[in-house]
Amino acid sequence: MELKKAVVVPVENFYKYVSKHSLVKNKISKSSFRKMLQKELNHMLMDTGNRKAAHKLIQNLDTNHNGCISFNEYWNLIGGITCPIANLIRQQEQQSSS
Amino acid sequence: MELKKAVVVPVENFYKYVSKHSLVKNKISKSSFRKMLQKELNHMLMDTGNRKAAHKLIQNLDTNHNGCISFNEYWNLIGGITCPIANLIRQQEQQSSS
Repeated sequence: MELKKAVVVPVENFYKYVSKHSLVKNKISKSSFRKMLQKELNHMLMDTGNRKAAHKLIQNLDTNHNGCISFNEYWNLIGGITCPIANLIRQQEQQSSS
Repeated sequence: MELKKAVVVPVENFYKYVSKHSLVKNKISKSSFRKMLQKELNHMLMDTGNRKAAHKLIQNLDTNHNGCISFNEYWNLIGGITCPIANLIRQQEQQSSS
């Protein structure tokens, strides 16, 4: 899949979880965010290490502690979960090609 | 497309642009990064405002000024480009549904 199509998916996903009746515009509540992780990225969190990392990220994520997660905070968290997996994919590729 | 599949695409794309002979492991040089933007996200940078924003982001991005861009810096930039577009998509949807 092309990058330009792929990057729109997390955007659409973010707005899928922005609660319609939320007073805070364009933000996801922490609880919706956890639901999203479990539903959308659960396979990435199978490994306890990843799950602990995600939990810690969520704690640190709400940097302004308003209980809601902005698009940028959401995006950084997905990067935070994807990056270690990126390195894992990388190592596996290098091992299989050596 | 599912989020879990979509998030792997930027990861693979990052490693597509990590130069094989780069001394710096798992990093993209700034020049490769610009090439990637032009090739992969050019349609998102059509509007000069976006192009200026991306240019500024690249300048600020290399936060540790080592001329190379790590996965995290790369991921933040893609978020930085996608986020304004996310808001644009959002406004258009609200206008069309009102």
